[in-house]
Amino acid sequence: MTTAAFDESEYAQRRARVRQRMDETGFDLLICQDPANMHWLTGFDGWSFYTPQAVLFHRDDQFPVWFGRAQDALSAAMTTDLPDDNIVAFSEPLVHHPDRHPFDELCELIRQRGWSSASIGVELDAHYYTARAHRHLVDGLGGARIADNRELVNWARLVKSPAELSYMREAGRLATRVMERALERLRPGSPQKDIIAEVYHTQISGLDDRHGDYTSICPLIQVGNGTATPHLTWTSDALPDEGLVVMELAAARRHYHAPITRTAHIGTPPRDVAMLAETILEGRAAEPVGEGGAAALQAARPGVTCAEVEAVWQGVLNRHGYRKESRVGYSIGLGFPPDWGERTASLRPGENTVLEAGMCFHFQSGMWLERYGAAISESFVVTADGGERLCNVERALHVIT
Amino acid sequence: MTTAAFDESEYAQRRARVRQRMDETGFDLLICQDPANMHWLTGFDGWSFYTPQAVLFHRDDQFPVWFGRAQDALSAAMTTDLPDDNIVAFSEPLVHHPDRHPFDELCELIRQRGWSSASIGVELDAHYYTARAHRHLVDGLGGARIADNRELVNWARLVKSPAELSYMREAGRLATRVMERALERLRPGSPQKDIIAEVYHTQISGLDDRHGDYTSICPLIQVGNGTATPHLTWTSDALPDEGLVVMELAAARRHYHAPITRTAHIGTPPRDVAMLAETILEGRAAEPVGEGGAAALQAARPGVTCAEVEAVWQGVLNRHGYRKESRVGYSIGLGFPPDWGERTASLRPGENTVLEAGMCFHFQSGMWLERYGAAISESFVVTADGGERLCNVERALHVIT
Repeated sequence: MTTAAFDESEYAQRRARVRQRMDETGFDLLICQDPANMHWLTGFDGWSFYTPQAVLFHRDDQFPVWFGRAQDALSAAMTTDLPDDNIVAFSEPLVHHPDRHPFDELCELIRQRGWSSASIGVELDAHYYTARAHRHLVDGLGGARIADNRELVNWARLVKSPAELSYMREAGRLATRVMERALERLRPGSPQKDIIAEVYHTQISGLDDRHGDYTSICPLIQVGNGTATPHLTWTSDALPDEGLVVMELAAARRHYHAPITRTAHIGTPPRDVAMLAETILEGRAAEPVGEGGAAALQAARPGVTCAEVEAVWQGVLNRHGYRKESRVGYSIGLGFPPDWGERTASLRPGENTVLEAGMCFHFQSGMWLERYGAAISESFVVTADGGERLCNVERALHVIT
Repeated sequence: MTTAAFDESEYAQRRARVRQRMDETGFDLLICQDPANMHWLTGFDGWSFYTPQAVLFHRDDQFPVWFGRAQDALSAAMTTDLPDDNIVAFSEPLVHHPDRHPFDELCELIRQRGWSSASIGVELDAHYYTARAHRHLVDGLGGARIADNRELVNWARLVKSPAELSYMREAGRLATRVMERALERLRPGSPQKDIIAEVYHTQISGLDDRHGDYTSICPLIQVGNGTATPHLTWTSDALPDEGLVVMELAAARRHYHAPITRTAHIGTPPRDVAMLAETILEGRAAEPVGEGGAAALQAARPGVTCAEVEAVWQGVLNRHGYRKESRVGYSIGLGFPPDWGERTASLRPGENTVLEAGMCFHFQSGMWLERYGAAISESFVVTADGGERLCNVERALHVIT
């Protein structure tokens, strides 16, 4: 086995932090189905999140309990520090059963442990926590106190430890390489698929002897009018002789993500495109002369709110006659498909979360206008000196001639 | 834009088939959040399934309605045949809002269309249909008749059209190439990550000018004791000088999947490993002499039940002293992360679904024993002559010397 991503003390600290939040919010027991929360609490790793599974954490216990499919229980034993008694498998016939559900057995487990009268916090909006799973839990524990824990563990993940930041920086270095390779391959006539094949190869090859993991969102590429929308994927089409290309790519080290977006123009960019790109750069950059003394990243210091960072950026946009409706950034870190966002703090109006050193964000400055769009984004970590970029790709509209 | 994957008449037939099932089950309106169901009904394509979105289909209407994030609405316009009025965006501030939810506006849409007294079928167990989304729907439509549609659209997808089978066969050819390249690279000392980087490159490069899509499950590789569990992913570790390697890989053409699993042994395999592999091959193969006249694939003809196919396979296993608890196969086709299974018919005891020509399955014959495992799987389409394999990789325990 590859070395565990973190040592014992890291997990102990995480659990202590979650325990404290449980005390503050009055939960005795958490049921986590978000794969990132399961991983963060235990180290559990494996592509088994397409079946019902969960990590349970009771405030009085040292270790969480892993609950999942029998064939994945050994993955739990191999990738976590949990004692054997804390790895519990459900019966195989419950998989995709029309009437019964694995959470029927989760209810039994909860009763066996004496937790059925506990105050239980579930992740009501976690991607894989389906309405049906919840129904089986509620019906199965009849009368138990079950409430939405409102992303309690996700919020506990917001400030990264030094060990986590080290993976974030590695992810940033790898994402830099990924984006640079992709940009080098943008040529008229190149099939989109060939560029993306190279992106994947670079993502996984990693940094020397350190592998890259799958990223939570696949590589995204938009061409021409397609740049007006952000989540299209590649086709077999050849790149045109002239026009915009936007790529949102990422890299992951031990499931920690650094996403980055760049915009290229094949041929001389029209005036409006160049101006949009310049505006984005001015509003977003935090670099010495030539790259602006500006703006949002420089503002991203401990003590400042998320909304304040957004306001700096929106101010620059407005000065140039633009306006961005969607949030300009969101918290990042550990992630599993389908999203590398942590579903907690967003850089947007009304968001009063106060920045602390060690928080990480994807500053997604994408502007999707009616007929085209442009995006030049950065992943950064909050430091006393402002947002420290995790990647280092040339900050410019990439002109391909 | 790349040519649409299917023409108008294909979508008309799909919608007619769903309408018929709605009549049979008494639903007036379906709300589909499964990305594969959304795609199958409309062609909608894009990695936006990490935000709440849905396709609504009313039995009296010709076209479904797409509902999603504003920045993705243009993707819907670009990838579907829906009229403009049937593409509806929710307000951006609802993304990750602690109290409001995009489905609050979905409720408004349903009321505006006059559907609030309809019999509404939701996908209660679809991966991204969260308990919170359901709660907002139920509360927002107060008193509406909302019930689980029990994978109604998934079941409608079970028998593939000729156009779909053509993509399935392309996926099979591509998966063959993917697996062969991976097997060629299995050598003592090879880092796992380098093999997987090549897998991804091959998956996306596709077949000549036809791109491959991202697969719904990432490439899986297990080594040594890790072969006793099926869902581990790659590390930076070098392959050992001796031992088992299991890889479950796939390829996707226009999101149609063909998965395949092969087992290799570096060095001469111990007797027990060789015997396990032989048993799997005997129980699974449907090939002329030398490859067995056997067994499960040959049995997979129209009119036979899923359970009967499983019984053939289990019989061979039992004769050799093995027993498989987990299902031996499941329906495949169109898929998006996190699963390429359709969540409908499984090849397992008690499953009385009757096979029809055009159904496709992944015959996952993996055996995960206490200390090691082996798997030699096939994707197949049901034909009058039995299961037609979609891939064509040597059916053997791969010995690497």
